[in-house]
Amino acid sequence: MHITREEIEAFPHLYKINLMNSISGYKSANLIGTKSNTGTTNVAVFSSVVHYGSNPPILGFVVRPTTVVRNTYNNIKETGSYTINAISKDIIEEAHHTSAKYSAEISEFDKTNLTPEYKNNFYAPFVKESPLQLGMKYLEEYYIKANDTILVLGEVVDLYIEETMLSEDGFLNLSKENIAAINGLDSYVVGNDFKRLSYQRPK
Amino acid sequence: MHITREEIEAFPHLYKINLMNSISGYKSANLIGTKSNTGTTNVAVFSSVVHYGSNPPILGFVVRPTTVVRNTYNNIKETGSYTINAISKDIIEEAHHTSAKYSAEISEFDKTNLTPEYKNNFYAPFVKESPLQLGMKYLEEYYIKANDTILVLGEVVDLYIEETMLSEDGFLNLSKENIAAINGLDSYVVGNDFKRLSYQRPK
Repeated sequence: MHITREEIEAFPHLYKINLMNSISGYKSANLIGTKSNTGTTNVAVFSSVVHYGSNPPILGFVVRPTTVVRNTYNNIKETGSYTINAISKDIIEEAHHTSAKYSAEISEFDKTNLTPEYKNNFYAPFVKESPLQLGMKYLEEYYIKANDTILVLGEVVDLYIEETMLSEDGFLNLSKENIAAINGLDSYVVGNDFKRLSYQRPK
Repeated sequence: MHITREEIEAFPHLYKINLMNSISGYKSANLIGTKSNTGTTNVAVFSSVVHYGSNPPILGFVVRPTTVVRNTYNNIKETGSYTINAISKDIIEEAHHTSAKYSAEISEFDKTNLTPEYKNNFYAPFVKESPLQLGMKYLEEYYIKANDTILVLGEVVDLYIEETMLSEDGFLNLSKENIAAINGLDSYVVGNDFKRLSYQRPK
């Protein structure tokens, strides 16, 4: 089935965003935790967290300044501190609810069963229920001219993991803690049909 | 288990890249197809394709200029044309083999069972075996100072999908065509435990 750019443009809004959010393949499922300078916490689901490098360890994610996740962005810019917390099967519904448009003075931690957790004097709250928690420090950002979004880059400063996932060679088997992936805007998938391949050389 | 930044830095290279490539959660599994001005094709696996926007439809991916995927980047800069092709269960091994470091004059299409497919006068080759193929046009790029990588943004100009995946509201159910996600550097997961949630409003 062939869908042209003109047909994409002509789709109704909801149809278009469902389709366009599905075509990149599976997306990471994470909660980003922050706290404003005045102490209001915020936690929000993100599907755009992506690896930029291992040495130094850098992750990026995308924010659209005009949406609810602006709270996350503002807190990061104020404090330099945020957490990235993997969404596991047990907290999918709670995590997804953080996409509701709450105003800045309301903490999603108060509106869900997600629990803020503070460790080792890190400023931003971790999500206690998450099996894979990252303490992040803001590095730099890029304004994306093409569609008025911002790529935020940060470096990993602390890593908390359930040891069940950790292999001898550093690989984390995400399925051991039922970590989810996101399909489209609103679907969560927990993988189990697992295949690990070897380093490839020319043949 | 707590791992500090200092411990991350001190890990052996392979351990560090396995761990740092696992912590962002599941990644999209795509093959990017290109063709140079002189007609040499290239196809390479990427795990960094991510949604930037629906209106206009924009996807981004990350290249590290010093690695093998430089061929992909050079071809895109030369021609403005590339394809993004989802990796399904049947072609995981072939797709993963494209990560081997072939020189620019060798086409990975000749070294795997992946088949180049040309449609509707689009310059870059699609991967015939993929159930979800995107024709992409280069838009702009951002040099990432933090670790010498490049974010490449492109817009979707053509979309080819197996209709089995398409829902009434535009959502594509990736599991219907056994599309894979990537965990870490070298693990491919096919999801099936599927849960779709509703649009969330404040409660």
